[in-house]
Amino acid sequence: MRIVLTTGDIHGIGPEILMKSLPSLQQEGRSFVATGSVRAFEFYRDRLGLPVRIEPISSISAIAGIASEKGVLPVLSVGEPKSIEPGTISKSAGAIAMKALETAAGLCRDGLCDALVTAPIHKEAVARAGFSNTGHTDFLADFFGIPSPVMLFVDPVSSLKVALATIHVPLSAVPGMIRSMDLDGYFISLSGWMRQDFRLANPSIAVLGLNPHASDGGVMGDEESSVIRPCIERLSGSMKIDGPFPADGFFGARRQRDYDLVVAMYHDQGLLPFKVLAFDTGINVTLGLPIVRTSPDHGTGFDKAGKGTASERSFYEAAILAADIASNRTKNH
Amino acid sequence: MRIVLTTGDIHGIGPEILMKSLPSLQQEGRSFVATGSVRAFEFYRDRLGLPVRIEPISSISAIAGIASEKGVLPVLSVGEPKSIEPGTISKSAGAIAMKALETAAGLCRDGLCDALVTAPIHKEAVARAGFSNTGHTDFLADFFGIPSPVMLFVDPVSSLKVALATIHVPLSAVPGMIRSMDLDGYFISLSGWMRQDFRLANPSIAVLGLNPHASDGGVMGDEESSVIRPCIERLSGSMKIDGPFPADGFFGARRQRDYDLVVAMYHDQGLLPFKVLAFDTGINVTLGLPIVRTSPDHGTGFDKAGKGTASERSFYEAAILAADIASNRTKNH
Repeated sequence: MRIVLTTGDIHGIGPEILMKSLPSLQQEGRSFVATGSVRAFEFYRDRLGLPVRIEPISSISAIAGIASEKGVLPVLSVGEPKSIEPGTISKSAGAIAMKALETAAGLCRDGLCDALVTAPIHKEAVARAGFSNTGHTDFLADFFGIPSPVMLFVDPVSSLKVALATIHVPLSAVPGMIRSMDLDGYFISLSGWMRQDFRLANPSIAVLGLNPHASDGGVMGDEESSVIRPCIERLSGSMKIDGPFPADGFFGARRQRDYDLVVAMYHDQGLLPFKVLAFDTGINVTLGLPIVRTSPDHGTGFDKAGKGTASERSFYEAAILAADIASNRTKNH
Repeated sequence: MRIVLTTGDIHGIGPEILMKSLPSLQQEGRSFVATGSVRAFEFYRDRLGLPVRIEPISSISAIAGIASEKGVLPVLSVGEPKSIEPGTISKSAGAIAMKALETAAGLCRDGLCDALVTAPIHKEAVARAGFSNTGHTDFLADFFGIPSPVMLFVDPVSSLKVALATIHVPLSAVPGMIRSMDLDGYFISLSGWMRQDFRLANPSIAVLGLNPHASDGGVMGDEESSVIRPCIERLSGSMKIDGPFPADGFFGARRQRDYDLVVAMYHDQGLLPFKVLAFDTGINVTLGLPIVRTSPDHGTGFDKAGKGTASERSFYEAAILAADIASNRTKNH
């Protein structure tokens, strides 16, 4: 199995956490290539004294022939910067980050790699480089022509999994989207992905309510009674699905431990408890793409860039999970 | 100082946690009375073998003359039930709970008690008893003629304090309420309450954004740029106030430790992280009333009622905090 790692913003902690993770990730049957800038990897390797040898890859066609060697990072250069200034927003760093992502996505699409792990990019640097999609998920959705990929957050330490029903939209748009979306299809897809990617034979899903106290029987909002509960009732004959639960009491009573997956109706409802519970081990998984894609659940860390103090934990866990999912998908065939 | 404790629903854990807390709460200069049912207190005292002597109070006028005695609970009866059935929803239990609350609020209003600590009531039991306000906060708002009291959640273990800008409303109503409310006045009041009730000379306030990522510069919603940020800028010359912060990253990076108070824009945004962080020590404080009122941050616990297994921790902490706030208010005079 071959996994491609993107450099992320080369002025952030991406190259550092990638190289720090590499030696422990390299095990039998699992090889890695990176897309990004050879110079940037060398810069951080030298500056931080990391025990990694950088091997430039001459061309995409050479990737299939690369043998895995412990401590060696094969890098496919997608562009080289004139200078490297850790912690700064730069157009050229944004351009390299997105070119590295596009190239890596292509390697997976074309079967040269089996999974994609992305290091963090900087939204403003990417915008300066002229890209309209400034996030990984949106870019990959466009790249693969998938209208609505699903964001799943996984904490490998606590086994917590949280999926979001709506993502990066204004809070005021959320109730309307919940009313109009195909919730049945969404839950059925989630259940299928849990089986395929996580090898859960009969995944159990807990659904959070949209309103405070899940509307308390209709006292505060009616999305639970008009949309969410009927959907759960329709599906409950064919899958393990419960709710809608009052979100605060659910996590307050640690009920997440009783389910394989928790579905939040909107971004902050899922990510607030997730980020509190999964301190520095959170992983973001994009479901619904034709490829496997994971990433650490943190940003570019410009304040730590070039200092050697960034934790590679979340990136490491993201790469392990990517390998697991890719392996699970293979077993299903 | 005299503190009045309400029984809560007598079919729940209220009488038990009240009596379990009593001995450690009773210290020099701090006396307690309870409102509720003498019979219910005796029922749980005998059933659970709690070392408490119940002393019926003959009339409201007798309260001023009651001397505090360790292990003795003076109870002002507001009604006695025909039977007591732990774990069941009952009209008479709902009526006693609300009468106990009303009586206790009156004792504080009339200066006979200095603070009110309420045990949990059951919404459906209260509704069956014919009350339209089925929550403590709403009832007290009406009782004192206060249009919008503020819900504050306090965790005495971590010092976390979270206030809610909007409370029990449908999620779809939240953005409109944030746009139309007097946010300036709200933050100024909060700052004043922090000084008065918590003796924080110069309280620092962190404000969370309404939208995911606090709208990321306007990409998802504009309440941050049109309402919240201008308000913070207007106030920042006269108080310590920062934000709007992306809510998930704020708690993810443990930034709550840098502030005396965190303000959430809506119920679940504040209570999801709060309930995860303050596991069984959370306290609810009602700000903006003419009296001091706290309560434990949990429900009636019908599943545990009468078994002796309920934790009195949150009730105990709520009573300690009520005493502290009452004492702080006295010092300010």
